[in-house]
Order: sequence, then C-alpha cells, then structure tokens
Amino acid sequence: MKNYTKISDINNLNQTIKDAIQLKVNPFQYQSLGKQKTLVMLFFNSSLRTRLSTEKAAKQLGMDVMILNVNDAWNLEFEDGAIMKMDKSEHVKEAAQVISQYADIIAIRAFPTLIDKQKDTSEFVLNSFLKYTSVPIVNMESATAHPLQALADAITIEELKSLAKPKVVLSWAPHPKALPQAVANSFIEMMQYLDVDLTITHPKGYELSNNVVKNTKVSYHQNEALKDADFVYVKNWSSYKHYGEILSQDSNWMMTKTKLGTAKFMHCLPVRRNSVVEDAVLDSEQSVVIQQANNRTFSAQIVLKQILENL
Amino acid sequence: MKNYTKISDINNLNQTIKDAIQLKVNPFQYQSLGKQKTLVMLFFNSSLRTRLSTEKAAKQLGMDVMILNVNDAWNLEFEDGAIMKMDKSEHVKEAAQVISQYADIIAIRAFPTLIDKQKDTSEFVLNSFLKYTSVPIVNMESATAHPLQALADAITIEELKSLAKPKVVLSWAPHPKALPQAVANSFIEMMQYLDVDLTITHPKGYELSNNVVKNTKVSYHQNEALKDADFVYVKNWSSYKHYGEILSQDSNWMMTKTKLGTAKFMHCLPVRRNSVVEDAVLDSEQSVVIQQANNRTFSAQIVLKQILENL
Amino acid sequence: MKNYTKISDINNLNQTIKDAIQLKVNPFQYQSLGKQKTLVMLFFNSSLRTRLSTEKAAKQLGMDVMILNVNDAWNLEFEDGAIMKMDKSEHVKEAAQVISQYADIIAIRAFPTLIDKQKDTSEFVLNSFLKYTSVPIVNMESATAHPLQALADAITIEELKSLAKPKVVLSWAPHPKALPQAVANSFIEMMQYLDVDLTITHPKGYELSNNVVKNTKVSYHQNEALKDADFVYVKNWSSYKHYGEILSQDSNWMMTKTKLGTAKFMHCLPVRRNSVVEDAVLDSEQSVVIQQANNRTFSAQIVLKQILENL
Repeated sequence: MKNYTKISDINNLNQTIKDAIQLKVNPFQYQSLGKQKTLVMLFFNSSLRTRLSTEKAAKQLGMDVMILNVNDAWNLEFEDGAIMKMDKSEHVKEAAQVISQYADIIAIRAFPTLIDKQKDTSEFVLNSFLKYTSVPIVNMESATAHPLQALADAITIEELKSLAKPKVVLSWAPHPKALPQAVANSFIEMMQYLDVDLTITHPKGYELSNNVVKNTKVSYHQNEALKDADFVYVKNWSSYKHYGEILSQDSNWMMTKTKLGTAKFMHCLPVRRNSVVEDAVLDSEQSVVIQQANNRTFSAQIVLKQILENL
Repeated sequence: MKNYTKISDINNLNQTIKDAIQLKVNPFQYQSLGKQKTLVMLFFNSSLRTRLSTEKAAKQLGMDVMILNVNDAWNLEFEDGAIMKMDKSEHVKEAAQVISQYADIIAIRAFPTLIDKQKDTSEFVLNSFLKYTSVPIVNMESATAHPLQALADAITIEELKSLAKPKVVLSWAPHPKALPQAVANSFIEMMQYLDVDLTITHPKGYELSNNVVKNTKVSYHQNEALKDADFVYVKNWSSYKHYGEILSQDSNWMMTKTKLGTAKFMHCLPVRRNSVVEDAVLDSEQSVVIQQANNRTFSAQIVLKQILENL
Repeated sequence: MKNYTKISDINNLNQTIKDAIQLKVNPFQYQSLGKQKTLVMLFFNSSLRTRLSTEKAAKQLGMDVMILNVNDAWNLEFEDGAIMKMDKSEHVKEAAQVISQYADIIAIRAFPTLIDKQKDTSEFVLNSFLKYTSVPIVNMESATAHPLQALADAITIEELKSLAKPKVVLSWAPHPKALPQAVANSFIEMMQYLDVDLTITHPKGYELSNNVVKNTKVSYHQNEALKDADFVYVKNWSSYKHYGEILSQDSNWMMTKTKLGTAKFMHCLPVRRNSVVEDAVLDSEQSVVIQQANNRTFSAQIVLKQILENL
C-alpha cells in the first residue's frame, strides 16, 4: 500500500481483514518491520481513540512515534498564491515537505469546516499533504472520510457475523452539534465492498452524497429499515444538502432496545448517551462498540504494516 | 499490587520503601519487566513533576508510554443516566473501557472541584475508571489523595532520618489560591503507617477530615507544634469544613528559618517562595524538596514494578 | 561539549559541520550512545521544525525523549526574591533543579518578550536553567540566539557552496508581526566564524546589536548588497534599537526572483509567502529551505552526540 487516505487504497480487502484479525494473536509479531522508522501524527483536531490506537499500532510494529498538535505550532495556509499577511504563519507547501523529511509515514486528522462544502469536498488538507510530501499519508479522519474507522468496523462485523450475508442498517440519530458526514460515508463505502445487505435510514434532508450512496437502499422509515437487521450502525451527521445544518433533533430517531431487536449495536464513539442511543442499548450485551474501538488498533496496524512493507 | 489508588494498596510498606531505595542503584535493572507493556497517562489537570517522573519511571521499566491530555480530546460525562445534550461528548463508561484496551496500566490525574464536597469525596473520576476499566489504575493525584507523593515522602524520610522514631510536623501555610487537601491527607495517612511521632498544626477552620486525622495530635499553635521537630512538611490546603474556602492568608504561618530550627524542610512542590516559605529555608541545606522530587521517580517505579509483576 | 546555548560552545566548528554531514550516511550509527539517557524538551513557545527535528535527532541516538509544553504545567517565576502571590506557581530555582533530575540533557525553547530589552538580553530563561540545573542545556531558540538553526545553515552552505569563499547576504524582509532578532543574530555569528564574504542589508532603524554585527558590512541598499551573491538568507526581525517595534512593512524589501539573480535562497522557516518572499523564489530550484529544515535534524544530532560523549 502506498497511502491510506481512502478505502480503495486497500488492494485485497478480504485478505486485509483476515490479516488484521490474525495480528491480534500476537500484536508484536512484526515488531522488527518498523524499526528505525518514524510515524509523525498530525492533529488539526481533537482525538482520543484514533490518537491512542494509532500510536499503539505503530509502536507494536516497532516504529518511533512523534505527535504534533498543529495548534501547538501555528496556523497553516492552504491557498495557492496567498499573500500571507494575516494569521497563517506557514504554507502547507513548506510544512508538508519539511515534515516528510522527519517522517517515514505521516498520519493526519483534519475535520471539515462544515461551512464551505466545496473546500471540504476537495479535501484540501489531506490532498495538500499528499501533493507536497514524499512519504505515505494515512487518513486519521478527514473532511469526508474515516477509512481507519471503516476498516475497524469491517473487522468487527467479520468477527461477529453469523450469516454469510448479514443485514446491516446505518441509522441516523439526533445530536445537539453539527457533525461531519465522514464516518457515515466511509461505513457505507466499506459495506458496499463487502458481502452484506445494506440499508440506510434517516429523516428527509439528511441524504448523503450520491457519490457515496450509489445504489444502496435508502428509507425514511426507521422501523421499516431496521426490520430483521443483524447489525445496526447508529450515527449522527449534519445535512449534506443544506450543508452542515442541523435540520432535526427529533428524539424519535434515537436508538432504543425495542427498535434494535436482536441486532448488534455499532457506533464509532464518542457517543452521547440517551441522545443518540439509550443506556439500555449501550449497557446490553448487544453493544459491540468497545470491540469496535479495540479493532481500531488492528485496523491501524494492518494499514501501517502494508505501508511499511511497501517502503 | 492490583491498583495504586490509595496508600493501603501497598502490601508491605516498609519493604516497598526499601525496594524503592534499592532501585536507585540501577534504575534499569528491571527494564525487561515492562517490555511490550503500555502505560497510558491521562491528565485532567496540569502537571510537571508527576508527569515527567511517572513517564521516566515507566520507561526505566521498559514500558511504552502514551500520554493524553484529556482536554486535547473532549469533556467526559460521569453521571449515570445523563441525557448528553450539552458540553460532554463521551461518557466515562465508554472512555474507560476503550482506553483500557490500549493500556496495560492507566495512570490518572484528576483534581477536586473544591466546590462539591460530596462529589469530590466520592472520587468520581478515579472510581469511575476503577469501575469500568479492566486494567490496573495508578493515582497521579486525585480529589482527596496523592499516594505517589506520600510514598516519595516516606522514601525521603527513610533516607534522611537519624532517629529511629523522628518527630514529623505537618504545618499549614498561607497561599493565594484555594488548594486541595490531597497532599496533606496522603502525607498524614503515610506517616500514621510509619514509626514517626506526627503532629499537625494549622489555624482554626482548617481541620482536615476526621477519617484522615484520626488520633493524630493537632495543634493550633505552630511554634509549640514545631518544637524539636526533625522533619517539617509545609503545605497549604483550603478549608475542608468550609469546603474549598480560603479562611486565612495570615503570613505569620509562613515557614521561616527561625521557626524551622534544625529540622529538615519538606514540600511536595510547586511551592510559592516567600508566601508559603521564605527563601532562606528553600536555599538552605535543610531543604530536601529536590530530593523529594527525585524520589517521585522511584516511588512511581516501585509501584509500577509491583503492578507489572502482578499482571 | 558541555552545553549548546551559543555557537561558541562548539569546539571545532569545521569538523563539527563535516561530522554532521557524515551522520546523514547512517543516522543510526551512534544509536547505542544515547541508550538509557533521557532528553527533556521544554517548550515555552510554539514549535514545528525544532520540536520534530530535535526529537528525531535524539531518538536516532537511542535516547528517550520526554516533552513538556510548559503551559501544560504552570507559569514559572524567574525573579530572585519574588514574593509569589500572583500568577506564577513555581520558581525556576525549583523547576530547573527538579527537571534536571529526570533528564540527562534539557533542551529549551524560550522566545524574547520583545518588550523588555534588558530582560531579553539577559537571557533570563535560558540562563536560569543553566544556573540551577546540573545537566547540559541545549538552546532550541532563546531570546537572542538560535544556534541549532545557525548550525543547520552552516551545514547547508557547506553542502551547496561551489566557491571556496562564497558571498553570503543576509537580507531583511517585511513581516506583519514583530519577530525576534535571534535567527539573524546567530546566522551572522555563524558566518563570521566561517570563510565567507558576508553582507547584511536592511532599512534604516533595523540595525542589529553591535555585539553581533562587529565589522560585518552593512548596507541600506538591498540591490547593491545582493550583487553577485551566492547565498541570500532572507529574514525579518523587529527593530533592536526601537526595541520590538515594526518600523517598516515596505514590500520593496520582499525577496523576488529578479533580485535573487542566480543565488541560492535561504530561510529558517516558517516563511510567509508573498510577504517575505514571492512564490516564484520558493517554488524555484534556487530555494534550499527544505534542505535547511532537513539539516536541523543533523545539527541537533551532532550537538547531542558531542554532549553525550562528554557526559
């Protein structure tokens, strides 16, 4: 693998999922692979799981890790030709080239503005680094995608499914803040690659990009969509059409034990209890969110492993 | 040792102190013990000594260390059954379970509110992690206790005492800000376990919890209390009775060279010069605060060692 | 080497530059030298290159690295005899002594106030640590000097020069914010040690300290100064005479492709495009700023190596 900025960077997805599960048997089995190699993790935004699991994954491969909260440095300019007289102290052209000299792999977290749809869709942060660095880039959640999360989700479903082709439902949930579409986008894309029966359900106005949804079934009726589900992935996102807006906080869309039926409950975390999903779900055996979070380590580790093998 | 959240988690205190002193001879003698083990350090509050000494201790045992300033992620919710629609993005139930999957040991610093006595006394942060994690927890100063500091203090006294049963005085000092009772609480508890003659002295209104003080002598007359002391531990705390309040800033309680007599001067640091204690004390040979701070490394290291041996 | 707080701490400069270049062949050749040694990096100010390159250099020598953003702890007091009742929680006397017990080497970044000339000139932060620590100190940019940058600059010129004695010009550039004189000071001092023909050019009022400039040619006419230059180092600084003031933002002093002629373009970064220097320069083959930034690693590594050898 050269970079992991999008799911399609994975060559053989089914084998990769199997290899990730195999890593769990002995997480240190490839610890000589990353020797004398450095992962630089750049955070433009907050992180808990992604930060700890990616650092852990790299160290289990024997890598050195250097972390930079970009806010501990200064604001970067991304516009070509900008006359830099305001609050941006360094252009990404320099920053990216410089950091790539200190790193064998660079991992980046950079959320969308949720204000400027075109800019977000262009993935200007991630793509600027891709353009100006000479080393592989790993996406730790960008404006429109969270492929490490989606890979962890795929690993979790592979570990837990009892049917060859399970029914998977992505169900929108209410949330007090405007959130990105990234997790939903990547989950949908990942499920489209796998042998699952996927349905998306959300209120009107929350339609995701056609480039993501494609032929996947979409229903505005949550109960109908959830019928006979094996896995229910709950997630809030703000409107894509009315970009970044909160159109509904209708608590009828919150996931409950009753609605869930016998399905497994999935969420990328952090999750707001009794707002996105009721306690009864999270505290039940049907919730697999902790296992998903654990799989973040092996999702990151298999990606870093494949990149290291290709250096 | 399973956890180190309180002094009584130590099985054999006198042997532990001896073993800590022995670690100093060659701090790296157990560096294979922590191999492929990860310490996650979680900071809800500022830290200098605790942060550096605990990280160093873990590395001297061969551990990997991952540090999370919780403010670099987001606010955690601790209330059971909370409807999470405000400024808390993740419940400790998830956070604790998730982090415990990335860690072999979790160390936590979480100061009290100094506003809600009941909540602070419940040690809601530390105890939530204890409840929801599956890995050992180390207390890097909690709402009511600082057992790593107290262990370093005990090591220091053991190294420096010239009498079998020295006289130790804990003397309150004025301070411009309201500070926790944690250091005082743990120092008292530690001294009660050891073979010392302990006296506590403070102005009226600064009585610490009865659960801590027990039968220890308390005097409102500093000069009387200090008489013939071998070790004087100076520390400010805010009122426990009038919870979190500053009742006095009376500079007559500041420690001076004259009052100290021939005793050794102890303080956990950071210390405000010429407010808590005059320069003449800190700059004299009688001050052992730097040695105390050095012992923080070996206090943390012996605790981590005993936990690692029990994994 | 005992400390590296100023360029003159280097014993044999020409050999040091050669040794730094030699490190690039195999950056890990001395990785046993730093085993069981700890570098503590203290940041009073923002950093990108310095932070990553110094951490990388230390790790390539096998050192452990612990990083403290001093703002994650608390404000330090530097005044002797201060009565600490305000916003400073710890005196540097304690902080420095304490940290030196956790570190084999301490690296410090502490910018000037740009308000109090006398205080800045006294290098009160750096010199307080020098005074109170027992371990070597490395300057990661102080109030008046940036010797790691200057050494990287010297390495870069050594690698790229085609003449035995190249003509080097330090050319002031406009900038929207008041910046320190540190980089300019250290670059001048470094060039004075080397066999180059140095000219400084800046508008009136931007004269640097006589203690730095000494006999070096200074011209107020940029075009005249730039004539036949082999290396042009562009940098903004605020007025030294009218301390910390911005006297000019005259864009005529911006570096352009035309002015540069056939010279190599140097800058320490971060650089504001189209304000300090036009895109056409930075995007040309004549710009060596990325190579300069890469040499920061080897500048730090040769310094740490010489200090480690002297421990």
